[in-house]
Amino acid sequence: MSGNRLKHFGWGREGEGATEAEISAARKLYGQLFGLDHFPEQAPPPLEALSLPPPRVTIPASLSGFCTAALYDRAAHTYGKSFGETVRGLLGDYASAPDFVAYPKTEADISALMDWAGSADVALIPFGGGSSVVGGVEPRIDHTRYKGAVSLDMCHFNRIEAIDRTSRAACIQAGIYGPALEAELRPHGLSLRHFPQSFAYSTLGGWIATRSGGHFATLFTHIDELVESLRLVTPKGIIETRRLPASGAGPNPDRLFIGSEGILGVITKAWMRVHHRPRFRAGSAVHFPDFYAAALAVRAILQAGLYPANCRILDPQEAANTGAAEGKTAVMVLAFESADHPVEAAMRRALECCADFHGTPEVTELAEGHLAGAAGRWREAFIRMPYLREHTIRWGVITDTFETAITWDRFESFHAHVKAATEAAIREVTGRAGQVTCRFTHAYPDGPAPYFTFHALGRHGALLEQWQAIKRAASDALIAAGGTITHHHAVGRDHRPWYDQERPELFASALRAAKQALDPAGVLNPGVLIDP
Amino acid sequence: MSGNRLKHFGWGREGEGATEAEISAARKLYGQLFGLDHFPEQAPPPLEALSLPPPRVTIPASLSGFCTAALYDRAAHTYGKSFGETVRGLLGDYASAPDFVAYPKTEADISALMDWAGSADVALIPFGGGSSVVGGVEPRIDHTRYKGAVSLDMCHFNRIEAIDRTSRAACIQAGIYGPALEAELRPHGLSLRHFPQSFAYSTLGGWIATRSGGHFATLFTHIDELVESLRLVTPKGIIETRRLPASGAGPNPDRLFIGSEGILGVITKAWMRVHHRPRFRAGSAVHFPDFYAAALAVRAILQAGLYPANCRILDPQEAANTGAAEGKTAVMVLAFESADHPVEAAMRRALECCADFHGTPEVTELAEGHLAGAAGRWREAFIRMPYLREHTIRWGVITDTFETAITWDRFESFHAHVKAATEAAIREVTGRAGQVTCRFTHAYPDGPAPYFTFHALGRHGALLEQWQAIKRAASDALIAAGGTITHHHAVGRDHRPWYDQERPELFASALRAAKQALDPAGVLNPGVLIDP
Repeated sequence: MSGNRLKHFGWGREGEGATEAEISAARKLYGQLFGLDHFPEQAPPPLEALSLPPPRVTIPASLSGFCTAALYDRAAHTYGKSFGETVRGLLGDYASAPDFVAYPKTEADISALMDWAGSADVALIPFGGGSSVVGGVEPRIDHTRYKGAVSLDMCHFNRIEAIDRTSRAACIQAGIYGPALEAELRPHGLSLRHFPQSFAYSTLGGWIATRSGGHFATLFTHIDELVESLRLVTPKGIIETRRLPASGAGPNPDRLFIGSEGILGVITKAWMRVHHRPRFRAGSAVHFPDFYAAALAVRAILQAGLYPANCRILDPQEAANTGAAEGKTAVMVLAFESADHPVEAAMRRALECCADFHGTPEVTELAEGHLAGAAGRWREAFIRMPYLREHTIRWGVITDTFETAITWDRFESFHAHVKAATEAAIREVTGRAGQVTCRFTHAYPDGPAPYFTFHALGRHGALLEQWQAIKRAASDALIAAGGTITHHHAVGRDHRPWYDQERPELFASALRAAKQALDPAGVLNPGVLIDP
Repeated sequence: MSGNRLKHFGWGREGEGATEAEISAARKLYGQLFGLDHFPEQAPPPLEALSLPPPRVTIPASLSGFCTAALYDRAAHTYGKSFGETVRGLLGDYASAPDFVAYPKTEADISALMDWAGSADVALIPFGGGSSVVGGVEPRIDHTRYKGAVSLDMCHFNRIEAIDRTSRAACIQAGIYGPALEAELRPHGLSLRHFPQSFAYSTLGGWIATRSGGHFATLFTHIDELVESLRLVTPKGIIETRRLPASGAGPNPDRLFIGSEGILGVITKAWMRVHHRPRFRAGSAVHFPDFYAAALAVRAILQAGLYPANCRILDPQEAANTGAAEGKTAVMVLAFESADHPVEAAMRRALECCADFHGTPEVTELAEGHLAGAAGRWREAFIRMPYLREHTIRWGVITDTFETAITWDRFESFHAHVKAATEAAIREVTGRAGQVTCRFTHAYPDGPAPYFTFHALGRHGALLEQWQAIKRAASDALIAAGGTITHHHAVGRDHRPWYDQERPELFASALRAAKQALDPAGVLNPGVLIDP
């Protein structure tokens, strides 16, 4: 991990980014898609050229030891990584910048900040790695209600406090980034094995607060299942749950805070269930005549109780875009792994399920196959993808993803409906065809988690509205067809209108009441999940 | 399933019960344990001899179509199946009988009942199969706060409404009993495969409301994981969550209601994840030199990611009591099963883990071994056990169980401490030694769920106080040593003092606020989990 600071605009740290080759490959791909050999370019303003609104609140003396209102800090904490936020960054619009940024070093610092925020009517926005794609970290608040907003960056909570090898668990501070976490576990032969796409620039606390989806495509998909206990600071005090492998004592307290997106408290550490590092592997890409055939194979594998570590499928276009295939076949990335025992038998049975739906494996030598061929190419593209948007957006390309989940009985009609609605919206909004692809990132015995990607050619000056219109059409379609507004990207501020339809109104009443009990001044991440 | 009504005292339906042979075997066992050849007997009064307090509230005309204040109904809804309740039944003490019993047929009936209860200051106690062992269904309420109490029996919500074979899910009404549920799924080749010990006399709604623990000893142990969506009636209206295989949209709404023990609403139906019926099996009892060696093997199997369907261990005394072994060895009941593929390889690997800790399997022919030998004897004893207490209690025998969970790093000292504290309490309270045994009912990669059984010779006239003193000592010990007050028996009213220590105080504040939002009059199961 580089020691450089995070970029204020774009993905990763200063000095990192897409290579020239990656950029020109993307240019070529979009050129072909939209029939253009040239894109009108717009560049984002450099940091020094940004004009931020003057802070509306000043840092109180008692907090000055860990707070700053410096330009970089405010700019780098204005936005997450959603398309809409990236557009506003491109335009140099930092109207929603936090008034200052706090970097607490202790729970007492956080409590002091909360006390002050409550008395000063200032909103607090918890910030981990800033990789939210749903407006979860942007201080987009009601200025008639709040006198200001402070971004609360957890980066100093970056250690592993204890490792219990006997129970295979570790006590990990919430602000630690993915790579540092894994680096500390590795000498012990352990791994959290939770690798969201944002892994390099997201934190344990962020994963828990947003119910992030990780490496495993089946069984333990969400961070939820890996949490053994939690510790949070709330405006009313500390909450710490017991370290327990399981319990039946009332509603699970951890589950109220997992996915609470910073509105109930700030997670400071958690005991996490960790794994031995895998030693046995088998994997292959499997080619299918079409996406629905591949989906049937996924269903068969899941309902067989086989639990592959990876069982993702790409539709033919998605496979072509990422170099995993030629565009004529759908591809399944299938892999089993174990720290304890050989997995070839499970792999062979999964391949039989694939064969039932005309799936043909790419490799016949099973071990380590998961990193070769189509699977390896897709994996590499997946990891590099986030670096490209800060370039493609300069060309006016609107590209975004959205993910959901649906039961198997409704999957095909659901997929067709959502894809068609998004394609129609792209045509209507931009005046030309775009592209909508789909893959499964995770799958369950009772249904898959389809993940859609879309590409459209927007117009500089209208990118934000165009993106919003496409996003709205897609979200309307998937909610109307019975899906969830998010499988693992969270709700934030951007998904509120659809989340409000999805979750029962009386659950919102209960959540609002719970928030009122823990955060009576309503200072924690207002506008996320519920209105304060 | 017999069509007879449930007994008002004891386990099961009228006409069922322990055989003479079972009763005399128990008499012999306790005679040996306590060195007695004769027990002073006390018999419970028959139904006709009971004197119930006159109803404090009368059934309003609008609800009279589904409510009754008949003697049988009130008596049969006074108690669950805890030892303390059984003692009071033995004594003919029905002071806490509900004023009447409601048998709603529709959600509208439930809403009407809730509306009336709110306006009349009457407590409503949801009732499924009445198998609570924690005082969860007893109308033990504060009479200065409530003018009366009504037991709300869900027995008419007893159908499967829909089966989705594609997604392997079923929409099941909450009042259905275990055997009826399985009978309706069987023709479809499906099973919920959730078999708590109370299976025959407990309901889906009860399982969900109390986070019941089922058949599977690993992986899907609690009912929690099998719930796809829920529907509840609350005093503020209906809550229905979406059918989704997974979601990351805010805190999981189902998880607030799973384990809510009737204080937030009454579950009327749920979409449940069901399984294909298993076709492949392998299993065996495995004998170990001692309990801790067996525990180390359980840990190894779980951390190997093998997920046996059964992986329970009995300490030598428990194994002897249930006829599973001679009393010299600890016994593991180990079984794998699958609807899809052979499981011998997994079984062999698990037996290797056992061998590492000196575990010797009973059978070498693996298939169907799980129903033979020690494993089969233990299983039979397990299922018949609840029928015995209504006899042993007549002899003044205090026998009860309590279950918990703890991480592996603390297990041995935890077990020794809790066992010693319970044994000491028995000696102190009854003046003579008793017996405390332990088994694991469920296990996880990060820890086991130890399940303790104790036997003591009490004194008629003091049984309730003696039981309470022993229970208190055991509960104090396990909470002080870091365990949970319940792994799958729920909290109810009896576990409140220890639950109050276990759960974070601020979580109770949040839960209280959520209840206030859904049940502002505080009529639902007051005293359970939190004070209203």
